[in-house]
Amino acid sequence: MGLETRFTRAFGLRHPIALAPMAGVAGGQLAGAVAAAGGLGLLGGGYGDSTWIGEQIPLAAGNPVGIGFITWKLTEPLLEEALERQPKAVMLSFGGLQPFAARIRAAGVPLIAQVQDMNAARAAVEAGADVIVAQGAEAGGHGAGRATFTLVPEVADYLAVHAPGCILLAAGGIADGRGLAAALMLGAEGALIGSRFWAAQEALVPAGFQDAALAATGDQTLRGSVPDAARMLHWPAPYTIRTLQSEFTDRWQSNTEALRDPAQAPARLAWAAAQSRGDARSGTPVVGEAVGLIGDIRPAAEILDRITTEALSRLNAQRRG
Amino acid sequence: MGLETRFTRAFGLRHPIALAPMAGVAGGQLAGAVAAAGGLGLLGGGYGDSTWIGEQIPLAAGNPVGIGFITWKLTEPLLEEALERQPKAVMLSFGGLQPFAARIRAAGVPLIAQVQDMNAARAAVEAGADVIVAQGAEAGGHGAGRATFTLVPEVADYLAVHAPGCILLAAGGIADGRGLAAALMLGAEGALIGSRFWAAQEALVPAGFQDAALAATGDQTLRGSVPDAARMLHWPAPYTIRTLQSEFTDRWQSNTEALRDPAQAPARLAWAAAQSRGDARSGTPVVGEAVGLIGDIRPAAEILDRITTEALSRLNAQRRG
Repeated sequence: MGLETRFTRAFGLRHPIALAPMAGVAGGQLAGAVAAAGGLGLLGGGYGDSTWIGEQIPLAAGNPVGIGFITWKLTEPLLEEALERQPKAVMLSFGGLQPFAARIRAAGVPLIAQVQDMNAARAAVEAGADVIVAQGAEAGGHGAGRATFTLVPEVADYLAVHAPGCILLAAGGIADGRGLAAALMLGAEGALIGSRFWAAQEALVPAGFQDAALAATGDQTLRGSVPDAARMLHWPAPYTIRTLQSEFTDRWQSNTEALRDPAQAPARLAWAAAQSRGDARSGTPVVGEAVGLIGDIRPAAEILDRITTEALSRLNAQRRG
Repeated sequence: MGLETRFTRAFGLRHPIALAPMAGVAGGQLAGAVAAAGGLGLLGGGYGDSTWIGEQIPLAAGNPVGIGFITWKLTEPLLEEALERQPKAVMLSFGGLQPFAARIRAAGVPLIAQVQDMNAARAAVEAGADVIVAQGAEAGGHGAGRATFTLVPEVADYLAVHAPGCILLAAGGIADGRGLAAALMLGAEGALIGSRFWAAQEALVPAGFQDAALAATGDQTLRGSVPDAARMLHWPAPYTIRTLQSEFTDRWQSNTEALRDPAQAPARLAWAAAQSRGDARSGTPVVGEAVGLIGDIRPAAEILDRITTEALSRLNAQRRG
């Protein structure tokens, strides 16, 4: 019993599921566990910390994993270093793909481009992406405004005409087999999943954050720039970050820029400390709207099996004549 | 060949599809055409114009249709008048369900409650709704913040425990068979569809607006309150309205309250005139993110057939063993 798509065939997978390369969360252990269980494991290269990547890769225990980067923070030296590690794929999100796309393709490494709207989808096709991830605003972490439900079929229609060989994955709001089955119906060949793996045993997430997420409904997340202001990061438009609502977002959401003021350095330090110790009220756990669908912390391999099994069960139950 | 669900059985339908009761757009002709073709036709009772409803009902040509209201504008006399017409259902959206819910149930008319978050879903169960519509922010017209992709399964999980007899429909972003199939996978028993029927021949929409929508991608819609300000309507939080982007929204989106200023009466009148003549640049066509999936203006019956046929084809193609 399996759920085979063009995505599983192209990457030799047993599940049509990729791990979202969540910065600081998808480390070597999680990416390796996903890869070992037959998904596509992507290390969260994030803001481009070469030392962190070097430390995490060995934790994948030899399982072939890819690396994801935040495009507007990527540098050519960092990309060269990543390509020397012969990653299973390089994923780029949030920003212009050139000059990196050409270099990745020249290295013979599959290029996965995450897009948030049709303009970005067209640019990804032009850059020769092998896989396009259509990411809806439901997603945890950074994203933009379009929703998974309309973006996926609209990108599928575009690819059918302009790049039929390009593989489409859906991202944003997918945490169980229902979501995977729905993504396939909408025209995707698989799903890129963040929040559900953020709640995996192997994720680099403080227990306090995971506990808060288990208790939350999807009503309790929001998009904004509060954690970016708290880190003094200047993300370009149109990207915002989805997190759990907290006392910290209550305080700053409608007044975000003020958090960057020099006088607020203590507030920013207190936030950073809360992030480290997993204090969900004083910090901002980074998780998506699918948090209301997550009820336990499990090993990544079990999460993969459960999602695919449930998707198959849904797909077969709905067959009509 | 048919797509039978608890929704089609409960209402005696041939398609698991309800027409969204779009104010001023879903008139008697459109609701009647949907009903005649085997969907659930809902007249857009909107802000409660009794004269308009009285004029539109006969245009349904004897086909049994329901009526939808904007709850915060509904009055008890208007509801009584509607119930005397023996509607196939009454749908309430946007606001507290009491005292209307009890009166509708006492009249033996099915109550459909549209919700935008988990709090509203719990309230709808408490009010005894027969059908709950989980509406994502992708939808055209008024709505809130949650996305279809996560709200539908989360409400489904809630109903499974607290109201297993309640029927769940998905709304927001569904314009074709892919969307209907995805909604079923997420746990809905059918879909409530607006934008695709807004682009039906029978819809009360100026040709200029429909033409603009055919040319648009889903990137070209936005949520805000510009058309509400232009009509001096004071919608309660958290509801906003999704429309096409236009020169009018470019001018006012970041400065919406100023449009209510007495000095801006000429701008509001110019907007109203643009709405009447179907000028999509000076007005604000009310349509959802699914606009990028709509490629033609067709009769409602053909739209219904096409959606169900495509959904069945997708569901059957994905069967795995």
